Amino acid sequence: MERRVKTLYERIEEHEDKVPDVVVLANGVDPMLDMTFYYATRLESGLFEGSMAVLHPDGNLDVITSLLEAESASKGDFDLHVFKTGEEMKEILGKMIKDSGTIGINGGEVTYKNYVLLKDLAPNAEIMDVAKPVTFTRMVKDDSEISILRKACRIASEVAGEMTGFIREGVIEYEVAAEMCYRMQKKGAIGPAFDTIVAFGKNSAEPHYHAGEAVLKKGDFVLLDFGALYKRYRSDITRTYFCGQASDVQREMYDVVLEAQRRALDAIQVGAKASEPHAVAADYINSTKYKDKFTHGLGHGLGLATHDGGGLNPRAEDVVLKEGMVFTVEPGVYEPGFGGVRIEDDVVVRKGGPEILTTASRDVFEL
Amino acid sequence: MERRVKTLYERIEEHEDKVPDVVVLANGVDPMLDMTFYYATRLESGLFEGSMAVLHPDGNLDVITSLLEAESASKGDFDLHVFKTGEEMKEILGKMIKDSGTIGINGGEVTYKNYVLLKDLAPNAEIMDVAKPVTFTRMVKDDSEISILRKACRIASEVAGEMTGFIREGVIEYEVAAEMCYRMQKKGAIGPAFDTIVAFGKNSAEPHYHAGEAVLKKGDFVLLDFGALYKRYRSDITRTYFCGQASDVQREMYDVVLEAQRRALDAIQVGAKASEPHAVAADYINSTKYKDKFTHGLGHGLGLATHDGGGLNPRAEDVVLKEGMVFTVEPGVYEPGFGGVRIEDDVVVRKGGPEILTTASRDVFEL
Repeated sequence: MERRVKTLYERIEEHEDKVPDVVVLANGVDPMLDMTFYYATRLESGLFEGSMAVLHPDGNLDVITSLLEAESASKGDFDLHVFKTGEEMKEILGKMIKDSGTIGINGGEVTYKNYVLLKDLAPNAEIMDVAKPVTFTRMVKDDSEISILRKACRIASEVAGEMTGFIREGVIEYEVAAEMCYRMQKKGAIGPAFDTIVAFGKNSAEPHYHAGEAVLKKGDFVLLDFGALYKRYRSDITRTYFCGQASDVQREMYDVVLEAQRRALDAIQVGAKASEPHAVAADYINSTKYKDKFTHGLGHGLGLATHDGGGLNPRAEDVVLKEGMVFTVEPGVYEPGFGGVRIEDDVVVRKGGPEILTTASRDVFEL
Repeated sequence: MERRVKTLYERIEEHEDKVPDVVVLANGVDPMLDMTFYYATRLESGLFEGSMAVLHPDGNLDVITSLLEAESASKGDFDLHVFKTGEEMKEILGKMIKDSGTIGINGGEVTYKNYVLLKDLAPNAEIMDVAKPVTFTRMVKDDSEISILRKACRIASEVAGEMTGFIREGVIEYEVAAEMCYRMQKKGAIGPAFDTIVAFGKNSAEPHYHAGEAVLKKGDFVLLDFGALYKRYRSDITRTYFCGQASDVQREMYDVVLEAQRRALDAIQVGAKASEPHAVAADYINSTKYKDKFTHGLGHGLGLATHDGGGLNPRAEDVVLKEGMVFTVEPGVYEPGFGGVRIEDDVVVRKGGPEILTTASRDVFEL
């Protein structure tokens, strides 16, 4: 019996009017993979394209996968079904679901193509989108997840700190990205959690910049946004440094963002609305000259995906913070053509205030 | 007018009975992103979660994105619409599609959630899955795509070669992965194309292993499967080396796989069925003592995604190879508990035979 399967069904009971006879987590082709598949199966290696996890209300778990992944899947604790061809897969899955009255799917992480497949295999079943309970299930991390996340965050934090000794005038953005990933992997990360952002100067005003060919020069912002992938879980940290002495304007931007983060962290309390910390940070920033320069949500859920579901933003009015939820807390202000400051940490919601997993210093650092 | 939009509509005319009034490429939350969005928009930086590309038959392109991505999107050549809230996004998209008779979607890369959104915004429209013409569009790469892929392949090839000087007895799998990613990024890659596989000894029998904590010892297989991400495009190369002198069995496995690849490469010809090269490789392997040990397809399309649509496998009976298609060619044999050999190169289909983009040596290498 798989505890995580049971947990999902408990969340379904909480958030939906009815409980499906079965929930199918269906992977498409990379990158269209449902991270919930890995949550439910606990499989640490393997890709599992086109694989299916069939979750039963009694906690039982069937996994259907291709011969290619059979060796990876053999490490799991579930009923394993291996197919050689797509036709075989349909036959196995069809037998499992054809008599179901209601089939739950995870609408935000299943493709239209797999939805059509399920409809074809169980033409009389009602398809029920259980994305919301899936999100709530994954939002609250269990101890084994938090311990993996703690390691992923420690790796990234150490590297954030070390980079102050590496970055100097004349270095290129992608060289810094290379060095950060290298150091994370040497510390045990599988790889970067997402495409590393190293943004110098005005590039720092583009929140989802990557790492390009800009050369660092005195007076530049140095924005590093990166994370470690460790046992499928991801950390996500941002530090903004300065090359040479920060100008008054740069320091003012930094102080505004740091204070916004401090206030937001104080607002992360068990029982609070998930929209509240964002409001606190945004209200503060909007009370300064950087009004309307904070152009994104305060944070997102963090776990198997970098954007793991849930978030600290105005849309999260109906979400109540619970112990064990993990979020990024990342206020920022951006001046297109000039530069941006973002400071991001990863926290676990705890009674008495958040536990901060990313421990790199947030003091102003002039390289 | 965007040439790539026109190309997609040409493929739709070829493969479907009707042409939709509009095609919507809808991104979900990372990793549920449709790579076709980046193909159509040509945007090199930015994440674009929850963003929409609306493609019109006359070649016009509308892009709807959030304020967060506005700076990244401003680099594109299309009509840009920026929203601040989800409601605003729905309003903008709704206006564009509400009177459409037929809306095309990319069923393999759109989530069920976004499908439901489109149905809600255009309740009278027929939803038409154009995944097949999308795949055929992206399968044939244009010159600018091939030149990016060539660079991505060169980066990975150089690193594959260099690693023979780095890997030695006692090294740990993840140290090798770190070194490979570092070298790729120093050569200009944004990051690894996918989670790097470094598999020593019997771990090499698990095709989608990652890189763990195994320590290299004499007699081990050393399987490296990795690639570079460069301007959103991905390379994918595998080399299998040996620690110390290869045993007779290891060398025999290697020779079988190398010969299978050689035969498959010969079979990659403009006009051939895409299933043919796989059949040639599989027939050869099945004629040796490694019958049934080649447990996956010969190769997959390569481009914006590592598994970019299309492939060289038995299911590709109805696909005809065309100039400009890019595939991996990666036969392998696996003996669970003992080890595996895979040799993988990336090729462009060309008149007169494939152009091999990955130039690292395929000679037996004893470290």
